[in-house]
Amino acid sequence: MTSIPTLEDIKLAAEKIRPYVRRTPVFTSQTFNNWTGSKIFFKTENFQKGGAFKFRGACNTVLSLTDEEKKMGVTTHSSGNHAQALALVSKMVGIKAYIVMPSNAPKVKKYAVLGYGAEVIECEPTLQAREANVKKIIAEKGSVLVHPYNDYRIIAGQATCAMEFIEEIRDLEIMVAPVGGGGLLAGTSLTCNYISDKIDVFAGEPEGANDAFLSLQKGEIVPSLNPDTIADGLLTSLGDKTFPIIQKHVTEIITVSDNEILDAMKKVWERMKIIIEPSSAVPVAAVLKNPDKFTGKNVGIILSGGNVDLENIRF
Amino acid sequence: MTSIPTLEDIKLAAEKIRPYVRRTPVFTSQTFNNWTGSKIFFKTENFQKGGAFKFRGACNTVLSLTDEEKKMGVTTHSSGNHAQALALVSKMVGIKAYIVMPSNAPKVKKYAVLGYGAEVIECEPTLQAREANVKKIIAEKGSVLVHPYNDYRIIAGQATCAMEFIEEIRDLEIMVAPVGGGGLLAGTSLTCNYISDKIDVFAGEPEGANDAFLSLQKGEIVPSLNPDTIADGLLTSLGDKTFPIIQKHVTEIITVSDNEILDAMKKVWERMKIIIEPSSAVPVAAVLKNPDKFTGKNVGIILSGGNVDLENIRF
Repeated sequence: MTSIPTLEDIKLAAEKIRPYVRRTPVFTSQTFNNWTGSKIFFKTENFQKGGAFKFRGACNTVLSLTDEEKKMGVTTHSSGNHAQALALVSKMVGIKAYIVMPSNAPKVKKYAVLGYGAEVIECEPTLQAREANVKKIIAEKGSVLVHPYNDYRIIAGQATCAMEFIEEIRDLEIMVAPVGGGGLLAGTSLTCNYISDKIDVFAGEPEGANDAFLSLQKGEIVPSLNPDTIADGLLTSLGDKTFPIIQKHVTEIITVSDNEILDAMKKVWERMKIIIEPSSAVPVAAVLKNPDKFTGKNVGIILSGGNVDLENIRF
Repeated sequence: MTSIPTLEDIKLAAEKIRPYVRRTPVFTSQTFNNWTGSKIFFKTENFQKGGAFKFRGACNTVLSLTDEEKKMGVTTHSSGNHAQALALVSKMVGIKAYIVMPSNAPKVKKYAVLGYGAEVIECEPTLQAREANVKKIIAEKGSVLVHPYNDYRIIAGQATCAMEFIEEIRDLEIMVAPVGGGGLLAGTSLTCNYISDKIDVFAGEPEGANDAFLSLQKGEIVPSLNPDTIADGLLTSLGDKTFPIIQKHVTEIITVSDNEILDAMKKVWERMKIIIEPSSAVPVAAVLKNPDKFTGKNVGIILSGGNVDLENIRF
């Protein structure tokens, strides 16, 4: 896929990945409605296979490979949900996955990837080392790079989440997603734009990694330098494929502090009895912080994932 | 209701409480199926209103009161889920609730009950003080005692959970519930017995509060003396209304240690991304501990509630 996904592309992606993904349920909470004065719907991608929406994009990309490419396997560098997603879909489809991970990545994440049968290549914890190792693997194995977000197949895959959401909740007026590299946000905003001119798309972003907020302000990609936030899924910079889509279709990016993220996460755990990771709590925090922007509206929040290291959680 | 609920009674209870309760979803997990070699279905009463199945029984009891009784309000002594459930349904129906709580009950629980608009009466943390205070309230206010489990209206209400479960998953062969005072277990075993002779009912019980296990062994109620377990919803003794039903219809009670309970709870949080309280993890631990008893079967586990004090959780 060499250009911005069309509605047809997103529909095709949805059809292609249907046998593999979970159609995640939509939750509501009277308490959250009372708190915000709006009607909130939560799309629970924390229940997605592999524990996060990332499975959608990885699945669409792997299923889009030629047979020749599949034989050679796939590669990525990631210590997070994309690594798990790519490892899991590779296992389901029966191809090799080579995952480059920094040597300081949490052991649980490494074991999860190994548990899905992928090969883990450890390297020094620098971007340079990660990229060099990916290059080496690709040269050695002939495997295909699957980028975590800056790829139209990934964007089309992530876009299927908003499509399911709109199919189920017909009268959404606002959709809110987190933004890191921008794959989910770009996909979400494309779907909303194609399907209805009545759905505004907002994003939540951590103050400690507010490069997307700054990028929209400046009109060009501002890289994420020394990000510092508990929302560890949202540390990366936008890509040249995600940024233009976001610039065109996203109404506003709301930034929130780590305290606000942690508070929103605790509220979801306590009141809704579901586990979401800090990155997922970012759009929730954005809505709780600015209820006026959402008053009286039907608001769809994408809860992006639920992979937390429980041993590190202290409320 | 003065005798053991019939199938008709349970159906009536289900109809009566339908506008108030949540029809909780049934979850599955490939990982748990792999671990146990059986096909497990989880009925998620942690998503029930008030955060636990207790709402069903409290709701059925309150809705069964005469108009005269409703005017006088309801009373119970409890520091747990029954208190919250009774307070919540009283608020919904518009009657007064007087909840006697020991002065050392967790503040979160007290605030939850107050948040539902009930009146909290604090007393010394002894059973005698609690019972004396309940008597005093009833004498003063003329309110009706709503016992947490030893009441046929409560049992009929809790029995509706298994009914929904069987309606949704037609080919269950085993159902597993936790046992404390026995309201849920008695109701579950009645429903299973009425609807199908093919469903065996098991219970999970903490080793540190194994009075129900001992009661079945001895053939009479063995009181729960100095119970010591993290499953704080399962500390009470069986009642003279719950015990005979359990004795007649329950196949086996499996006891589990606090470590096994905590391990099962963590597994559910991590793999299923849902919050369950320690008491809910007890039947899960029972199945994980004895996979041979369940091999190849369709097993329904009732996840009884999700009210945990997150600040006290340390994995």
